[in-house]
Parts: sequence; structure tokens; C-alpha cells
Amino acid sequence: MKIGIIGSGNAGQTLGEALVKRGHVVKLGTRSPQKLDAWLNQVSDVRASVGSFDEAAAHGDIVFNATSGAGSLKALKAAGSHNLQGKILIDISLPLDFSNGILNLFVANTDSLGEQIQRAFPHVKVVKTMNTVSAALMVNPLSLAEGQHDLFISGNDVDARNEVIGYLKDWFGWESILDLGDLSSARSTEMLFSLLVRVHMTVGHSHFNFKVVR
Amino acid sequence: MKIGIIGSGNAGQTLGEALVKRGHVVKLGTRSPQKLDAWLNQVSDVRASVGSFDEAAAHGDIVFNATSGAGSLKALKAAGSHNLQGKILIDISLPLDFSNGILNLFVANTDSLGEQIQRAFPHVKVVKTMNTVSAALMVNPLSLAEGQHDLFISGNDVDARNEVIGYLKDWFGWESILDLGDLSSARSTEMLFSLLVRVHMTVGHSHFNFKVVR
Repeated sequence: MKIGIIGSGNAGQTLGEALVKRGHVVKLGTRSPQKLDAWLNQVSDVRASVGSFDEAAAHGDIVFNATSGAGSLKALKAAGSHNLQGKILIDISLPLDFSNGILNLFVANTDSLGEQIQRAFPHVKVVKTMNTVSAALMVNPLSLAEGQHDLFISGNDVDARNEVIGYLKDWFGWESILDLGDLSSARSTEMLFSLLVRVHMTVGHSHFNFKVVR
Repeated sequence: MKIGIIGSGNAGQTLGEALVKRGHVVKLGTRSPQKLDAWLNQVSDVRASVGSFDEAAAHGDIVFNATSGAGSLKALKAAGSHNLQGKILIDISLPLDFSNGILNLFVANTDSLGEQIQRAFPHVKVVKTMNTVSAALMVNPLSLAEGQHDLFISGNDVDARNEVIGYLKDWFGWESILDLGDLSSARSTEMLFSLLVRVHMTVGHSHFNFKVVR
């Protein structure tokens, strides 16, 4: 499958490499292509390439938003709504606000970044997921407790949610994915980041995830 | 131990009955004592009694805030700061805002109800915990997966947190309690309620809890 990834930080690079290794043709979208030389060398596969935001969006049958939350809307506008139109956008971004020293969210409770993106791009199928685990765990859930922990998914289009659930299982081996329904539930998973930070501080590492024991 | 419980809804009644059965002398504080006759009959133990908010607060060596979040500050003022002074207040309340149809929080992200209570009662040791599970699970964690799931605790006084951790283990059998540190971490666990609601809708019942798989 042709996959575009908007955003080339740790999450974008990790996703891109894992997807190439699964046989997909991946274009990583960035403002600074020259900074991705190390990534291209590391992946070392003709199926990996680097381009602008709009080139990555145009390339993908499926597109990821892996930008930092504060820059997501601007980056997606640069990617171009005509390049995203009708496609599934897997949104893994977090609305992090670093402006006050302590980490807060710039949107929470009554709205979410996922919903902001959906409103800005009404003809894109925004599916929020993988925003509650580290980049390393996103692409390798079986590295923790044999995959016995949960991922959440939100989106207004049930067919798009189900399609992405299939990809997450097939691409990365996610075994348990809780479908939380429409995109307003992205508020809940985005706000979970606050607890993830505290748990990280308590357990001392980021190789953890939540399991809904029921 | 003498325990006062401010608030006589489902959580307060469930906590009160469980604590009486563990041998504690419990006074449930309420605005409507006559409504608690059924509870007194059900518990049927001389160690259980009902009184006003200030009688319950004066009674307890340890006091619970089990009121609905929107009424917590008012109820605690009625309980009287002189009755709470120097005591541990175990705050299990949630800042739920039902005013807009859909469930939101009336404080989140940059502040929490736990912190609001601490600021209003600076000489009380506020410890936030048990606000992420159902009332039934609070007092009977072993009823789910043999207790293999996590509770969180927050508070500015480390000795108070440790004391409450001991009570939660001794009174109810909680086995795994993650100490998240100072009371600003109550923002994280209060915001978790948003996800609890969505998970409840997805799994169809409230007999679940999160486990931090690590």
C-alpha cells in the first residue's frame, strides 16, 4: 500500500520504517528533507522516500498525521485538502502545550485536536488512534506482555474505523483495540496523555500501556 | 477507627457499609438524615450512624469526601474547616458537569477539583484516590481479576499518601496503588473519567479497571 506520513519526528520515522519493513511504499513528509538522510540510510529500502507535506499526502492511499499537535493544522493545510480528500487520515497527534513550563493540553474536555482537524477537513476520514502509546510501542505491541494491553480508536466513519483496526492488527500486531465510537471520544484519549506523563514519571520509563481489565 | 463520610449517595453508602463491616465506626454525613434509614437498616450495626456534614466531619479521624463534585466545596464548608483541620481528607469526588447534556468536567487540564479543595482547606491533607473506579470496585477490588489492576493516588503530603495507601490495602484489599505524587496529578486521574465513560459505553458495564502493563 502507498502510505504518506505528515511529520518526520520520532513517531513519523518509527512508523515509516516499520511500514516499509512490512512491504509498504512510504513517503515521509517534512519541511526539512535534508534532515531525513539519516532515516533513509537507516531504512535503506527503495520503498522509503522523503518529500514535502503535499507530496507525502498526494502519495498516500492512507495518510498519517504524525506532526506535533501545535503544528498539525498548519502542516495539514500545507499538505493540501485536495491531496487528502476522501482518504483516511490516521491522526496520532497530541495537543501538547509546552508554553507554561508544566505540560498542559491546548484543547481538552469539550473539544479535541482530532475534532479540530475533522472540522478543518470535512471530506477527510479522520481516525484517531495510537495517540496513547510510545512510538516504539505503536509499531511493536508484542514487545510488551505479548500484546495483552489495549489501544483505543475514535472516528466518525465506522467503516474507516474498522478499516484502520484491520491495518493496526495486520501491520503491527495489535490484538486488542477498543472502538470508542465517534470522534468526540478522541477527547478522552487525548486527555489520557496527562495520566501517561504521570505514570511515566512514576514507573520511570515509557514502555508501558493500559489494559482495560474487565 | 472513627471515620466520617461527607456525602451519602451510592459511593458514600457503599464505602460506609464496607468500612463498618471492617470494624470501623462510621458516621455518614448528609443533608437528609431521614433518607438514610434504609442504609442504616441494611448495615444493621451499632457502629454505623448518620448525621449532618459537620457531625460526620467532627466524628472522623479520617474523613472522606464522597459528595458529587459540583457540591463538594459547599458541602465541605458546611462540614466546617475546624472539624477537618489537620485531618486526612480522602477525596473520591469527580468534577462532573451535566449542564450541557453531554458529560464534561467543570475543571480540567490546568487545575483539578482536588486542588480546589486543597486551596479552600489549606490545613487539611487532601488525598485524591478511588476516583477512577466504580463504588462497588472501590471496596472490593478482588472481585475483578483477583485484584490485578491499578489504583492511583495523589496528594501534597507524602506521609498522608502512604498512610492512605496502607488503609486502602488493609480496608479493601487493593494490591497495586500507583503513587503519582503531588495533588496536581489529580488533574490526570480526574480527566481519566472521560475515558471511563467511553469504555463503559464500549464494554457495557462498569465492572472494569485499568491496569498499567509495564
